[in-house]
Amino acid sequence: MKFKVSTDMEYEVRSASTLILSIHALNTSHQTVLSEQFSIIPNTGPTDIVTTGENRLWRLDIKEPGTYKIHYEALVDNFARTVDYSDDKELSLAELDPAVLPYLNPSRYCQCDKLHNFAHNLFGDIKTPFKQVTALTDWIHQNVKYLSGSSSTETSAFDTVTEQQGVCRDFAHVGIALCRALNIPARYFTGYAYQLNPPDFHACFEAYLHGEWILFDATKLVPLNGMVKIATGLDAAEAAIANIFGDTSLTAIATACELADEGFEPIIYSDSITGIVYL
Amino acid sequence: MKFKVSTDMEYEVRSASTLILSIHALNTSHQTVLSEQFSIIPNTGPTDIVTTGENRLWRLDIKEPGTYKIHYEALVDNFARTVDYSDDKELSLAELDPAVLPYLNPSRYCQCDKLHNFAHNLFGDIKTPFKQVTALTDWIHQNVKYLSGSSSTETSAFDTVTEQQGVCRDFAHVGIALCRALNIPARYFTGYAYQLNPPDFHACFEAYLHGEWILFDATKLVPLNGMVKIATGLDAAEAAIANIFGDTSLTAIATACELADEGFEPIIYSDSITGIVYL
Amino acid sequence: MKFKVSTDMEYEVRSASTLILSIHALNTSHQTVLSEQFSIIPNTGPTDIVTTGENRLWRLDIKEPGTYKIHYEALVDNFARTVDYSDDKELSLAELDPAVLPYLNPSRYCQCDKLHNFAHNLFGDIKTPFKQVTALTDWIHQNVKYLSGSSSTETSAFDTVTEQQGVCRDFAHVGIALCRALNIPARYFTGYAYQLNPPDFHACFEAYLHGEWILFDATKLVPLNGMVKIATGLDAAEAAIANIFGDTSLTAIATACELADEGFEPIIYSDSITGIVYL
Amino acid sequence: MKFKVSTDMEYEVRSASTLILSIHALNTSHQTVLSEQFSIIPNTGPTDIVTTGENRLWRLDIKEPGTYKIHYEALVDNFARTVDYSDDKELSLAELDPAVLPYLNPSRYCQCDKLHNFAHNLFGDIKTPFKQVTALTDWIHQNVKYLSGSSSTETSAFDTVTEQQGVCRDFAHVGIALCRALNIPARYFTGYAYQLNPPDFHACFEAYLHGEWILFDATKLVPLNGMVKIATGLDAAEAAIANIFGDTSLTAIATACELADEGFEPIIYSDSITGIVYL
Repeated sequence: MKFKVSTDMEYEVRSASTLILSIHALNTSHQTVLSEQFSIIPNTGPTDIVTTGENRLWRLDIKEPGTYKIHYEALVDNFARTVDYSDDKELSLAELDPAVLPYLNPSRYCQCDKLHNFAHNLFGDIKTPFKQVTALTDWIHQNVKYLSGSSSTETSAFDTVTEQQGVCRDFAHVGIALCRALNIPARYFTGYAYQLNPPDFHACFEAYLHGEWILFDATKLVPLNGMVKIATGLDAAEAAIANIFGDTSLTAIATACELADEGFEPIIYSDSITGIVYL
Repeated sequence: MKFKVSTDMEYEVRSASTLILSIHALNTSHQTVLSEQFSIIPNTGPTDIVTTGENRLWRLDIKEPGTYKIHYEALVDNFARTVDYSDDKELSLAELDPAVLPYLNPSRYCQCDKLHNFAHNLFGDIKTPFKQVTALTDWIHQNVKYLSGSSSTETSAFDTVTEQQGVCRDFAHVGIALCRALNIPARYFTGYAYQLNPPDFHACFEAYLHGEWILFDATKLVPLNGMVKIATGLDAAEAAIANIFGDTSLTAIATACELADEGFEPIIYSDSITGIVYL
Repeated sequence: MKFKVSTDMEYEVRSASTLILSIHALNTSHQTVLSEQFSIIPNTGPTDIVTTGENRLWRLDIKEPGTYKIHYEALVDNFARTVDYSDDKELSLAELDPAVLPYLNPSRYCQCDKLHNFAHNLFGDIKTPFKQVTALTDWIHQNVKYLSGSSSTETSAFDTVTEQQGVCRDFAHVGIALCRALNIPARYFTGYAYQLNPPDFHACFEAYLHGEWILFDATKLVPLNGMVKIATGLDAAEAAIANIFGDTSLTAIATACELADEGFEPIIYSDSITGIVYL
Repeated sequence: MKFKVSTDMEYEVRSASTLILSIHALNTSHQTVLSEQFSIIPNTGPTDIVTTGENRLWRLDIKEPGTYKIHYEALVDNFARTVDYSDDKELSLAELDPAVLPYLNPSRYCQCDKLHNFAHNLFGDIKTPFKQVTALTDWIHQNVKYLSGSSSTETSAFDTVTEQQGVCRDFAHVGIALCRALNIPARYFTGYAYQLNPPDFHACFEAYLHGEWILFDATKLVPLNGMVKIATGLDAAEAAIANIFGDTSLTAIATACELADEGFEPIIYSDSITGIVYL
């Protein structure tokens, strides 16, 4: 399915600064960037796209103070499919790909070490991992209220399970923390999201089930197959849209995700499906 | 310089468990494992040494309850040198190796995002990074009291800067968090430490200065060139000695680090040196 | 019902210290101290029993280092009755005794401000206060595991609702915080407890319902009518057994609560009762 | 010195609510309310001024949804004097008025228990309490940045000592917590403040020195003798300007404090004075 995505940002730079932006769509086995353009005006010289893991970061070294306009747009083709989990089985940590072991650790916003009893009291009786992740996703959806401005960049999963309000970032952090507390590797996902209203970057999470990273979204705001992946990471600390080093602030932002194809059939998370999309 | 290191652990396994141990010495450009032996009694089958990044993890899948004795020993040769920082210069984030960018992020125990003002008020006037890291290492040494049992596995750098007591792990976390708050990549280091009394695993931290990971130890308990590296990570969450999944507990532990060479001349961190050891 | 209570403590005093002990039984409209004796050996001069609110504190000014033995014993008669809440009604804050308003505020260990959504999601649909408090007491009993050593003096209700383990102090803090979040005044209660095994000081909480302070105990470890009240306060910060100022540590402690009467019929909290004991 | 103070608030009441406002000036041995008027439009019936401790609270029971305008004004005469602390002596906890003992305890926003080492490392070598409180007030002033919007209602003294930014409320909380950590009773003070720009309610703190509550203001924004006391409490939890129970929100607020007298000579906190104003 093809999507056209774009980001426009304006930064007020007051002193020489380095910006590391994570707004480029990824190339993965399920997603291909067919074309893309990006620019900063005024121009600051050759562009440096760096990669950490699979993420593509746009590093900008801005020496002169001023107002800078950043534009990114891409045409992306991605591929989602549903997976049949009717024979969902217990995960074996002894056979887990070592590369995903770090996604079992507690991180800045996902203190799974402190959520052990909480997760096991609620979901410990469920014996297979796909059912656990769908159950915890439902719990978040039912108990945490989506409320703009109700959390801050300091809010962590440990806060949100009790404060029970937040934005997509917080919903993702709780999902990740609960998965890891149940010994299921999980990571943060940021992307463009078709039909998100108002348009914005979106965050959800992936759980590692039977050798694949599977997408879950506890906000249930958008179709799971309408997302264009930008980055993954341990949590929002590793997959931030922008890291700014220097006296610079964001003064405007707009993002868009439009369908550039036909025949889109939304896959919405539901209790009844025995499979789920991945990206 | 050659060191003989060893670990003996006893685990009480009450139900089928997976243990992931990080007790093997690393092979790096500065450290070579000349020989090593490791065993679990009773034997649980073929041994699985997995690697994540550069770390070597010993993954044990224990199916039968019982008491298990774990033994590791190695002869390791490592190489330390001092670096001349008399021409210490400001770091440029725009030129930083992308692979070290994750070490600028806040992590479970090192919330550099919350320590920004604290770090800048204390060390912001120091203009070059080596001097900043030595200054913050000294500040930790002077203000945080080394006191066994004064912290827990939940204690973070944010706690320790105010509670001002802890163990080597906490000293390392504060060092890492302060470095990152000053835009200096930093990571956790665990190892065997010669002359540590009583013998134990040790933790300190590495800062990424001018293209190299340099070792710092705010506890100042041991010579910097007497350490044998086991692992590095974002913080203790990623470089734990043991991660246990299942109903298993540690019932005994002993570790040793002996000199197997001649001519050891301790390098102790001091204000006057213009260079420092790295491993 | 008459109870004989006693406390024996030993303190190691290393420098001149002030101790403020809260081990004396209270005189209230429902409890009478029939006789009591208390002593410190070696003697430190005239004894100073001070009162704050209704609490009786034993303030000891110890000038000489040494080992001190403290003894308290009392014969106490108290009176418990059950209250019929079959016509439980909504509380009106507009008519609340102003003296209990402080027990609606968040305190050190009972951050009701952060538990608002949590309390309302779980208990907001229950319309009357007695039913709310019995429901939240049951929730704590079912979800929090009583585990010695699983919490510290820093653990708060906000921690315990997620960590879901603790001791009587933590159970009380969660009860208080949830009550206040539901606009029900609540306070901490410490006392001697008949049939507590092993013998120890006990902590539970009181909710202010229809003009009376009613006792609740989420640990459900002892009969509600077997307690001898020592003190009440906002939380454990205000009703600590001992506050020590100076270089002094507790080296031994024993406490006892024995029946000195006949015909004791235990009142255990249960879902079916329509009334509850108060003290 | 006479001051004319006033408050105007507008509340949007969406469902029956109880408001407890703390905007009335206090009558104390140093402050007299010469005249006052207060009203709510539309009128909600007889006004209920309740007292808790020395505080005067305006409790409003609003049954009908709507927009309500609240007005308070008063003419207040208060009396400030400087105290000579040239013979500052150590405080004796053994002689402390029992009524002030609660002000040594940790509270919601002032976790003195967690600031013990921090306070003693910085101020433990100062031997007398007035010098300690002036030193810690200076430390706060020099290290914490006054920045509107940089803290929230959840921010505590433990946060602020590291985050090093906040508003008057946060400055007061740090002052209180540090005093208590040094065994000096301290409490929160809210009031109207002459020459505060922009006009607003102000918060500072009182320390109990040699039998008197003495005023300190780490923000150093206004003259100490230009304040009109509204309330004191353990911290902002007990001395909030407004506690709202029900679905009601503040939509406008204005406050004023004008001199209604002649000959005002500002007393600003300074290192050189050997005495300080109290109210």
